[in-house]
Order: sequence, then structure tokens, then C-alpha cells
Amino acid sequence: MPKQERAVRTRGRLVLSAAEAFDRQGFAVASLTVISRNAGVSNGALHFHFENKEALAAAVEAEAAERVRRAVGTPDSVPALQALADAAHALTRQLREDVVVRAGFRLGGDASRGSAIGLPQQWHRSVVRLVERAHADGSLSRAVPPSDTAATVAAAVLGFAALARSDPGWLSSGTLAGFWRLLLPRIAADPVESGRLDCEPAEFTGGPGPASPVVTSLGR
Amino acid sequence: MPKQERAVRTRGRLVLSAAEAFDRQGFAVASLTVISRNAGVSNGALHFHFENKEALAAAVEAEAAERVRRAVGTPDSVPALQALADAAHALTRQLREDVVVRAGFRLGGDASRGSAIGLPQQWHRSVVRLVERAHADGSLSRAVPPSDTAATVAAAVLGFAALARSDPGWLSSGTLAGFWRLLLPRIAADPVESGRLDCEPAEFTGGPGPASPVVTSLGR
Repeated sequence: MPKQERAVRTRGRLVLSAAEAFDRQGFAVASLTVISRNAGVSNGALHFHFENKEALAAAVEAEAAERVRRAVGTPDSVPALQALADAAHALTRQLREDVVVRAGFRLGGDASRGSAIGLPQQWHRSVVRLVERAHADGSLSRAVPPSDTAATVAAAVLGFAALARSDPGWLSSGTLAGFWRLLLPRIAADPVESGRLDCEPAEFTGGPGPASPVVTSLGR
Repeated sequence: MPKQERAVRTRGRLVLSAAEAFDRQGFAVASLTVISRNAGVSNGALHFHFENKEALAAAVEAEAAERVRRAVGTPDSVPALQALADAAHALTRQLREDVVVRAGFRLGGDASRGSAIGLPQQWHRSVVRLVERAHADGSLSRAVPPSDTAATVAAAVLGFAALARSDPGWLSSGTLAGFWRLLLPRIAADPVESGRLDCEPAEFTGGPGPASPVVTSLGR
């Protein structure tokens, strides 16, 4: 394996191992020794890639932000309200299945450190963009303010994530489908059209692949 | 001051000081020395009341749970959907203004310790009770499942709290009023009646006072 690719791979393993530790124990308790051991690399290799624990946390947040950005991006050919429902399902799925995304969101709310990225805010901005598209193309009901709609959608998913900390069922696709069946008839301009929108998650089609080798499992 | 009352007061100051520390730094980083110093009591007095930091965290959670229970309780004379809107405003106000409640919710989601109480779950159960009352008395629309309604309301407030960690404006009464203007016409059985419901927070009337002297400010 070329030297550069090996370095990228080692970095990816460290980010994943750090995400697991941060998600399980929080930033303050997570130990660099455990993180490097679980990544299968030496303490020296960890410090070659990351100056300290804060640098690791920042890398987890940045990787989570990038994964969320990719997952909630939808081609403009998808109707705006469907894209909105799909985006919420995509994030819910990531919070359920991807420890890097889950840890990224937890790190942003971890009182033992400050967060520069703010994943909840990034998610809200993505929702705002989709709601504004629905407002612009007339598919959003004129009776509902776009800002209240975006706030409600963004908050609901984050709230399900908060409830899921003690019961993962809150991040099931069924919970979110129920939310959409409740909300869509209220926010869609055309009730008939809204009945055609899919409240269930879209089938996973893989989506655009990562640009560089990304480690998604430590294979332990 | 009688000895027992003094002990209750000291305990209250310690719980408040601990809440401030947990809210600011998280459970793992918060220091018992700082907590006792900010409460104006000796380390010995702290250990007389609380065996360790976990006992303090449990006390903060228990006090938060009790305050939330008092704040979201509404007399049955208030229409169920109005009681639901009022309860969400009451919790939002507490999350904004009462560091004990805010710390209690944060402690429940703090990965560096487990939580026995689960304030988000307690809040969801309160919402379920109010939604079931609206379902039973016919004020909830037959077109919306009570469980989806309760999940959406419970999650929205928790989501606003998550967003508020970097911008307190998310816990303003205006944000929540916008949510209710969006949701109420969808969940109310009678659209005319729903227009009469108050989406803004009820005027604060004080509510039932605490049974024992409760310290709400360290007066520093």
C-alpha cells in the first residue's frame, strides 16, 4: 500500500476509534491510550496525526459534518418537500448507524469543550435551504411561515436524537415517518399532492462515494 | 435559624452550585472543590450531604425532575390542547431560566455518566398524558394519531434546547409560539376552536410554591 494511502487509512481508523470513545464516554473521560489501542496504532502514530484530544474531537466533528452534508444533499430534480422528508430520514439513519455522525453531534453539545462547527446549526441551515426551495416553487403552503417550518423540522430530528440516548427506537424510520404524516398535510400547499409524498425513508441507493478511503469499521 | 432548616438550605445551595458547574463544564470536569466553594460551604459540609459527585448529579436530576413536574402540571379545568401548549412553554421557560432544570437535562445526556431518571422521557410521558386527555375529550383531531402527536411535541422542545446550546434564542417563547401556530391547526379537531387557543406563553402566576426552602440563587 502506498505510504500516503496508509497514512490516510491510519487517520481514518483514529477518527473512528475516537468517535466510538467520545460517543460512549464523552470528551472529558475518553482516553487517548484507549483510542490509539482500539485503532490498532501506537501512541506515537496518534500524536503524529493529532496534536491532542481536542484536535481529534475537531476531526470527528469535521468528518461528521462532511458525512451529513453528503447525506442530506438531494438533486434539485426531487420535489422540495420530498427532499426535505428524505433529508430528515437520511440524518436519522446516520444518527442511528454511523457512530462518527452521532459522536459529532454529541461533541457539539458536550459541556466539557466548546465546538466550532455546530452540527445542529449546520443541520438547521440545510433544512432552511430546502424549505426556502419549497416556498419559492410554491409547494409550501402560504399559510405557514418558512422559518417556523424549518425550525420545527430541524428541532424534531434533534429531539428524537435526545430521546434516543436512552431508547434507540426514537431514531427508527417509523418514528420519523409518523412525524411526516403529521406535518406534511399542514405544510404542503396542495393536500392531494402531499398525499403522494413518501413519508417513509427512500431506499438506500449508496449515494456518491467518498473521495478518499474512509474506514467505517475497526473490524474488531 | 433552626438546625434542620439550615441543613436544608446548605443542601439547596450545594445542588444549585453543582447545577451551575455541571451545566457549564459537564459532569466529568466539574470539581467538587469549586462546587463547595461557590456554595459557600466547606468540603466537609459537602461530603456530609453528598457521598460523591454522582450523588450530587443525582440530586440535581431529582430536583430538576420535581421542578419540571410542578411546572408542567395544569389543572384539568384548562382545555387539554391549551394545557399542552402551556406545558411546552413552561418547560421552555425553565430550560431558559432555571440552571437546575437545564443541568438536569444535560446530565441525562452526558456520556460520562449514566442517568437513572431520564428527564427527556419524563417530559415525553407528561406530553403523552395531555395528548391522551385531548384524544379522550375529542379536542384532538381524529386524523392524527396521539402517539405521533406526543412524539412531535416532546421532540420539538428537546430539539430547541439542543439548538439553544449555541444560541439561547432557540428557547425564546417566540420560537415555541411559532411551533404552536404551525402545529395546532393540524392537531385540533375544531379549526375554529384551535384559533382561540393561545400559542403564546401564559402569564407567569407563580404556581404552587415549594414545600421546603429552595435556594434559587447563590447571590454572588
